[in-house]
Amino acid sequence: MLVVQKFGGTSVGDLERIQNVANRVAKTKAQGHDVVVVVSAMSGETNKLIGYAEHFSKNPSRAEMDMLLSSGERVTASLLSIALNEMGHSAVAMSGRKAGIVTDKIHTKARIESIDPSAMLQEVKEGKVVVVAGFQGVNEEGDVTTLGRGGSDLSAVAIAGALKADLCEIYTDVTGIFTTDPRIEPKAKKLEKISYDEMLELASLGAKVLQNRSVEMAKKLNVNLVTRSSFSDEEGTLITKEENIMEKPLVSGIALDRNQARISLLGVADRPGIASEIFNKLADAEVNVDMIIQNKAVDDTTNIDFTVAVSDLTDAKKVVDTFVQSGEIKADSYNEDICKVSVVGVGMKSHAGVAAKAFYTMAQNNININMISTSEIKVSMVIDEKYAELAVRSLHDAYELEK
Amino acid sequence: MLVVQKFGGTSVGDLERIQNVANRVAKTKAQGHDVVVVVSAMSGETNKLIGYAEHFSKNPSRAEMDMLLSSGERVTASLLSIALNEMGHSAVAMSGRKAGIVTDKIHTKARIESIDPSAMLQEVKEGKVVVVAGFQGVNEEGDVTTLGRGGSDLSAVAIAGALKADLCEIYTDVTGIFTTDPRIEPKAKKLEKISYDEMLELASLGAKVLQNRSVEMAKKLNVNLVTRSSFSDEEGTLITKEENIMEKPLVSGIALDRNQARISLLGVADRPGIASEIFNKLADAEVNVDMIIQNKAVDDTTNIDFTVAVSDLTDAKKVVDTFVQSGEIKADSYNEDICKVSVVGVGMKSHAGVAAKAFYTMAQNNININMISTSEIKVSMVIDEKYAELAVRSLHDAYELEK
Repeated sequence: MLVVQKFGGTSVGDLERIQNVANRVAKTKAQGHDVVVVVSAMSGETNKLIGYAEHFSKNPSRAEMDMLLSSGERVTASLLSIALNEMGHSAVAMSGRKAGIVTDKIHTKARIESIDPSAMLQEVKEGKVVVVAGFQGVNEEGDVTTLGRGGSDLSAVAIAGALKADLCEIYTDVTGIFTTDPRIEPKAKKLEKISYDEMLELASLGAKVLQNRSVEMAKKLNVNLVTRSSFSDEEGTLITKEENIMEKPLVSGIALDRNQARISLLGVADRPGIASEIFNKLADAEVNVDMIIQNKAVDDTTNIDFTVAVSDLTDAKKVVDTFVQSGEIKADSYNEDICKVSVVGVGMKSHAGVAAKAFYTMAQNNININMISTSEIKVSMVIDEKYAELAVRSLHDAYELEK
Repeated sequence: MLVVQKFGGTSVGDLERIQNVANRVAKTKAQGHDVVVVVSAMSGETNKLIGYAEHFSKNPSRAEMDMLLSSGERVTASLLSIALNEMGHSAVAMSGRKAGIVTDKIHTKARIESIDPSAMLQEVKEGKVVVVAGFQGVNEEGDVTTLGRGGSDLSAVAIAGALKADLCEIYTDVTGIFTTDPRIEPKAKKLEKISYDEMLELASLGAKVLQNRSVEMAKKLNVNLVTRSSFSDEEGTLITKEENIMEKPLVSGIALDRNQARISLLGVADRPGIASEIFNKLADAEVNVDMIIQNKAVDDTTNIDFTVAVSDLTDAKKVVDTFVQSGEIKADSYNEDICKVSVVGVGMKSHAGVAAKAFYTMAQNNININMISTSEIKVSMVIDEKYAELAVRSLHDAYELEK
């Protein structure tokens, strides 16, 4: 079996932990598998370097930032390779360039365009462990680029895809994906398997283990992804094609997103294209709008409610203000004390009544639902933030997820 | 004028000092010059990374060490470029690869084979300051290599040669080359100019400011080299062709090398080729032999005395022991309490009596000379270490170097 193992910053946070990673890689190798490792910078290193750069400039050049930040992963890759060689496992460290990772030109937020896996495959063929510096590639001009937040996960998934690896293991400090946040519901259970689509919903709804970019790429490249802990031998959660999951649960998990704000626009002028104009302007300001509700008011104007991430609220307000000043919106109001709780499961597709049970559960607990949005595999509800934990626990109970 | 400025680890030792370097580069730029900067890793960084590697292995793989250590210079180059851009001086950071530096394959001790200056020249042409990560290049396979101790100086000189720069300034924490070590002789004077050959003698005789590799390359590429301090505006010392020095002083400086040990071989078998055999074996063991004296003993055997660096003494002893055991050498003795004091000056070529004055000065001070070696531009004497300072001061006086 060919396994790609990715270790994040916490897993390689100090020299002892790097040795620990080396032991784990050696163990996998000893089981007869081929291993390609992808590593992040030692935790704290990237922030230290960003701090250095910010000492000199509030808006440092992005090409320079890429050269600066990509050094952290190179250090970890070299050290892990040295540790493996010392243990008698022939290993070779590779930069993103050497591993064949070519990206577009967008410094600090580059997208992987192609991977030429020949250098990696050659070393694997010779029985070596390949240790790749994650988070980085090179653009057509040969300049170093970095992949932005979650970039090392992305490196690992893309490499697994290019190598047609049997498995891509993402090691973090948690043991896998849970039915809900165990800090809220101690009865939360670790999932053995989950589909790409469910994972995408859970990730965008607040589960922090994996970023959507990585899951999307795994889905696209058909990579079997496992998230597990580098600090225990416990099996993790497999994220895979829906077809690979025999028993599809009705509901896989309950997600909570506290990072939501609601914007209410009252008395929006009733002329064609006004809504499209507002949301286009929001898009231009790079404000990500999540849920939208529109309804007619009695006076022939329209009310529009929508949610955005709290971090986008200031930008969103600026856009809305221009419409208020021009008189096309009568009044606006904002509410940050809300949250979004979501029920996610592929089984919903084929089973009626999943949404109804969610609404009933809220009602039973006297929790008012402000907004609702549904997709094939999820039901999301915006509620007052004070009910967040109660809602999560009640839904976890209602769908019997502890079983 | 096109100036290459190289800043060592101490000069970029912290963020404040990097800002200080940026100010100096900006000043040179403001004077209308084009500037290419070469930087070392922040002082302490390289040793920190070596310490990390040694945590895992006493003999870490050299390719991995190169990937590990080359990251330090990349960090400094990125930060300096960010600082310059913030000050309004358009700058671009380059790795050794991007700067076009191609080396042989000897990891951790690579030699520069060629430099393609086109990327640097293009940026300079566009008015940009180019900031190059020193100490590194790439081999033919595209793997990062490093140039060994003093590698950043070497990068700077080679780049200055490839760019046909008017000047290559090496910034350190001392203001230039002195007639002798000012800690020994406070009357020591900073030299305005010195020839490559004199500098080579002084460097190999203990002056620590520049390594011979860099001076040799400067001589070969005809690069005007200046050593000066990054902490003051004082003019430094120009190291240049002998033809460029109008008034050639008889003697330029007095050098002292305490790092010497004397090995005496008594009763060496009198057969052809024995000396060559001994010194070949020493060369195989990578022991650098400096002075050699051979003379016939009364019993038809030979006595051979030679000096080595103290750090090579253990290895040298091992070699000598094999000859003692085989009976081809009757006895050996070792003396670490010696030093080598040297008088250096291009003027010696055309003036008689320089050596005689040195011997006379030693005699006047009752200092016994154990060994003598001379070249066109230097006279070296091995003496007991306890006389080191006295010898240096007396010679400095005798040649009136304080004037």
